[in-house]
Amino acid sequence: MPEETFLKPGEKADDLQRGGLKIIQDPRKFCFGIDAVLLSHFAAAADGAKVLDLGTGTGIIPILMSAMTGAEHLTGLEISREMADMAARSVAMNALDERISIVQGDIREAARLFPAASFDVITSNPPYMKRNAGLTNPGDAKAIARHEILCSFDDVAAAAGALLVNGGWFYLVHRPSRLPELFGTLRKYALEPKKMRLVYPFADHAPTMVLLGCVRGGRPELSVGSPLVVYDAPGVYSREIHEIYGPEWPS
Amino acid sequence: MPEETFLKPGEKADDLQRGGLKIIQDPRKFCFGIDAVLLSHFAAAADGAKVLDLGTGTGIIPILMSAMTGAEHLTGLEISREMADMAARSVAMNALDERISIVQGDIREAARLFPAASFDVITSNPPYMKRNAGLTNPGDAKAIARHEILCSFDDVAAAAGALLVNGGWFYLVHRPSRLPELFGTLRKYALEPKKMRLVYPFADHAPTMVLLGCVRGGRPELSVGSPLVVYDAPGVYSREIHEIYGPEWPS
Repeated sequence: MPEETFLKPGEKADDLQRGGLKIIQDPRKFCFGIDAVLLSHFAAAADGAKVLDLGTGTGIIPILMSAMTGAEHLTGLEISREMADMAARSVAMNALDERISIVQGDIREAARLFPAASFDVITSNPPYMKRNAGLTNPGDAKAIARHEILCSFDDVAAAAGALLVNGGWFYLVHRPSRLPELFGTLRKYALEPKKMRLVYPFADHAPTMVLLGCVRGGRPELSVGSPLVVYDAPGVYSREIHEIYGPEWPS
Repeated sequence: MPEETFLKPGEKADDLQRGGLKIIQDPRKFCFGIDAVLLSHFAAAADGAKVLDLGTGTGIIPILMSAMTGAEHLTGLEISREMADMAARSVAMNALDERISIVQGDIREAARLFPAASFDVITSNPPYMKRNAGLTNPGDAKAIARHEILCSFDDVAAAAGALLVNGGWFYLVHRPSRLPELFGTLRKYALEPKKMRLVYPFADHAPTMVLLGCVRGGRPELSVGSPLVVYDAPGVYSREIHEIYGPEWPS
């Protein structure tokens, strides 16, 4: 079917520069960012794995992971009916309906929406900011994606802890400023931080993101990777970011 | 008095390349490392501050901080009679007896050795390794400095929590692999991690050390600094390490 069949007014289909994959976005609402791309690359899923993305938004993470892993099935959970509908249309546009399901629902209800311990890998790019931090328009899609309006980090970790098999991995991206709290909340739900990378915009700047991989029921020992530096100079991506984005991605 | 007056057989007095300061070390036992130097530089103490170093070893941290801060008084607590005696002789050799006290005693007794909330700043370069991890000679000075034989990290954090004024800073250096546990233990004693830097041997390697600054009773929000990279190339210190060590320090 032609691309336009899947689009609603104001939406566009962006090429993901990866095996012809596309994604529908509405620039007036929330567009995915580098955090989602880095998380998709940081996360791993074994062949045959069952994967869940909590708060999938446009569906960017399961769509990218479908191309990068041998996961058998990927599910994206999204609370907004509008976003879930858009994500489902992106899945259909890429003819991925057999491998990816978009489920409209609340992260706080996730432990009732899916059977316990039914996923091998869970990913999440949750809201980074506290509920009231600098919030002007709490109904707005961007505000919901960025602020803990509809769910707290505790809700996200509780869902991951309940839905992962023991030994399964929870991958997330968040703000370094919240690391002590994140570690405390993760461990409360038996999610032991095992892998971490800090994302620095430039080699001599403070990091703006942290990528975390946690094992449900894992033994304590965190492996911290080398600094993930985004830019070598203003507008010039580092070699590692070029490798992640692929050769066709514009700077 | 001549330098030799302060030395015992097998010991040497090393120049710290900082205002003529020297330190007595015994190469057969434990010599201070880059971790202690980086911690001394990372830690801050306001003019007039009272500072305590938990497990001071050679006394390197209070001796360096005496030159770098306006701290009124610095105390080094050391369990080994032999090491405490050596540290006290280093203090005397530098004519710092008025500003630095070395106290022989156990970190686990620290809350009884000093009045509660009597320090503005506490520093510690504690043993990094678990009690039994690869341990061959548990009586050895190096083993005691490196392994949690005589105190656990919980003991160190408990002492810092009890002895700091509210709003006071606890600075420490440790292994990144233990970060989730460190954060949990620090917060248990109301020590909120506020500043962190990861120390990477090379820009594309995993970090080997983490520098942490915690505020007693602080509000949660961690500020993570730029990567502290030690070497630009094998044997070639980075500019930042050169600045920390000063121009006279050999690579």
